[in-house]
Amino acid sequence: MASINQNYRKLPGSYLFSTIGKKVREYESAHPDRKVIRLGIGDVTQPLAPEIIKALHLAVDEMGNRATFRGYAPDLGYDFLRNVIAKEDFQSRGCEISADEIFVSDGAKCDCGNIQEIFGPDNKIAVQDPVYPVYVDSNVMAGRTGTYDEKLQRFRDVIYMPCTAETGFAPELPNEVPDLIYLCFPNNPTGAVMKKEDLQEWVDYANKNGSVILYDAAYEAYIHEEDVPHSIFECEGAKGCAIEFRSFSKTAGFTGLRLGFTVIPKELKIDGVSVHDLWARRHGTKYNGAPYIVQRAGEAVYSEAGRQQIAEQIGVYMENARIISEGLKEAGYALSGGVNAPYIWMRTPDRMTSWEFFDYLLETANVVGTPGAGFGPHGEYYFRLTAFGDRENTIEAVERIKRL
Amino acid sequence: MASINQNYRKLPGSYLFSTIGKKVREYESAHPDRKVIRLGIGDVTQPLAPEIIKALHLAVDEMGNRATFRGYAPDLGYDFLRNVIAKEDFQSRGCEISADEIFVSDGAKCDCGNIQEIFGPDNKIAVQDPVYPVYVDSNVMAGRTGTYDEKLQRFRDVIYMPCTAETGFAPELPNEVPDLIYLCFPNNPTGAVMKKEDLQEWVDYANKNGSVILYDAAYEAYIHEEDVPHSIFECEGAKGCAIEFRSFSKTAGFTGLRLGFTVIPKELKIDGVSVHDLWARRHGTKYNGAPYIVQRAGEAVYSEAGRQQIAEQIGVYMENARIISEGLKEAGYALSGGVNAPYIWMRTPDRMTSWEFFDYLLETANVVGTPGAGFGPHGEYYFRLTAFGDRENTIEAVERIKRL
Repeated sequence: MASINQNYRKLPGSYLFSTIGKKVREYESAHPDRKVIRLGIGDVTQPLAPEIIKALHLAVDEMGNRATFRGYAPDLGYDFLRNVIAKEDFQSRGCEISADEIFVSDGAKCDCGNIQEIFGPDNKIAVQDPVYPVYVDSNVMAGRTGTYDEKLQRFRDVIYMPCTAETGFAPELPNEVPDLIYLCFPNNPTGAVMKKEDLQEWVDYANKNGSVILYDAAYEAYIHEEDVPHSIFECEGAKGCAIEFRSFSKTAGFTGLRLGFTVIPKELKIDGVSVHDLWARRHGTKYNGAPYIVQRAGEAVYSEAGRQQIAEQIGVYMENARIISEGLKEAGYALSGGVNAPYIWMRTPDRMTSWEFFDYLLETANVVGTPGAGFGPHGEYYFRLTAFGDRENTIEAVERIKRL
Repeated sequence: MASINQNYRKLPGSYLFSTIGKKVREYESAHPDRKVIRLGIGDVTQPLAPEIIKALHLAVDEMGNRATFRGYAPDLGYDFLRNVIAKEDFQSRGCEISADEIFVSDGAKCDCGNIQEIFGPDNKIAVQDPVYPVYVDSNVMAGRTGTYDEKLQRFRDVIYMPCTAETGFAPELPNEVPDLIYLCFPNNPTGAVMKKEDLQEWVDYANKNGSVILYDAAYEAYIHEEDVPHSIFECEGAKGCAIEFRSFSKTAGFTGLRLGFTVIPKELKIDGVSVHDLWARRHGTKYNGAPYIVQRAGEAVYSEAGRQQIAEQIGVYMENARIISEGLKEAGYALSGGVNAPYIWMRTPDRMTSWEFFDYLLETANVVGTPGAGFGPHGEYYFRLTAFGDRENTIEAVERIKRL
């Protein structure tokens, strides 16, 4: 008789963004006259850049022609894309990452969710708190987290690393040594970044203890300050202890196109086993490559015109971030983020819980944000706003919040 | 200190098609003057149909326009695609499957590989032998198969169901009751099909024993005979015990475009838990939807023009299948398949092992096929040829084999 994976029962409630979506849909259908502005889910709103559209059309035409048609892609990605990524994202920054250490995929969410599979069931994970839910949930499903403590709102066998206003929303090196350390910088949800010397401390800590750092750099393109590392591989020794996840979603508006990649250096070994080989085997068995046309679109992101066009798009979002930050500060809110990241992390007013503030904002201002509690217990009393809206709506949302 | 998933070490050798690819590359680089014809990996060669190309261009244009741009897709697929699938693939055949029982994905390989995650670690799996390697390998990775017995070439805790010439390459109901039963019809690699009354027996068996059937119908579009079911949901009671996987890869040449779907009826419950909900949660946590443009391409497959164009493409492949079958029969080979499937399953000559025959064929005829042993011990002394080549190459390959 078949049985289910009982670990799924340990997951508390449903996935954060599904819950938000449901609440918003219910509100909208009850109030069809109200214009709801979404600054909640981190989804982009600007159309794909012309250079990317051009590459897509070209690739589509190739797929319609016998001589240039492409069937199965190489499991790990086309060389044309792996090469340009290695060169432009890593080698140009002094990171010695080669093309065959790049694994192209359909997005960082999938890779962040799937990566835990190649590690043993007894690895203890550490996560920032607040944190992007996928890291924890995917480990719950795999049985690596123990049960959920309703009162503490934590899984018993996970090491939570509080990121608070006091630490500039950076985690501190944990006393109990984790096996797998999830770090996300620029951070979702707080928008915080880590300076190179601070990240170097984590790399040294991981190397000293035999831990692996799972480094989510999906928001790398939003880094604007000088001394902020774009890749963990800028740190000395990182190739022996780190895996990095990247995404085209927020870099170039690919949320609906699906493209990302994971970097696993060949020298990363555990007990003599190449982690690179394990992931290659995983990809070969359970994955069939990203679509050719989408990989060509990814290549266009690195062209001169593509680069310039996406820089303009990111500029638009970062101007939104400035508008939100300044408006809310004027209105007396305490907040951070929004400088090297498209997220603004604000303190809820009057000790409202974050879901109370979510409902309050939805009902009174018709603005959707993301409740901090959805990212972990230290997200309580915080609220995430994103800079991905269009200009007009962003300005209107800020005005509405200021009027409250 | 981090540790790896030790189950990966139980996987014997590397993935079948990677090994073939490596051998062929080595041969080609050693003999650059020879023209190697590939009838090995089941990859299509005809370009995407005009109607699909048209839909792709239209969708790409939408992505370049602010008013019609689409960001994150719904996790489970766009309604426009789920609706047409439910209607055309199921309801039109009398199967009561609704749109919200369709989970759109980037391909059947991913879904077949990932589905085991939602089941407990102690479920015992049964597979046809020979079998598509993904079913077994994904369960090895999850620790559900026990260790590999080199001598028997089998995992100790897997129920293998021999599919031999004596049974028409169909499995027989196993004595030991499995929890999860993988069935693939039309079959990869043997090309065999099951009649409806025979499939009904399996559904009854599963319902009686509380087993779940994981039904891979990726080659459904190749069914040409009357009494062969296109979906397991044509059988009575299947909604209480079966999950079905479908793919656009072989139906419409999407191997490089990536689109598939999984059907999980809401009434499929295990211990009162909805399997549909588990898979939805899995998708929500670890997956971000198939690209919008690819889902629009999928929709075009069901249009009147699209339908006609892909029927013509399948006709071309099936004519290849006829050419291979007749040619090899003439040459005295024993074979099956090729009628309701794009695969021809031939007996190797002179008791050559299937890898011996692979090397022999590559070196003497410069033709690539797939060694039956790669699909399981009962695949030994068999060899798979596919009908996906182009006409000219297929004819030439058959001539070369006949000359041996």
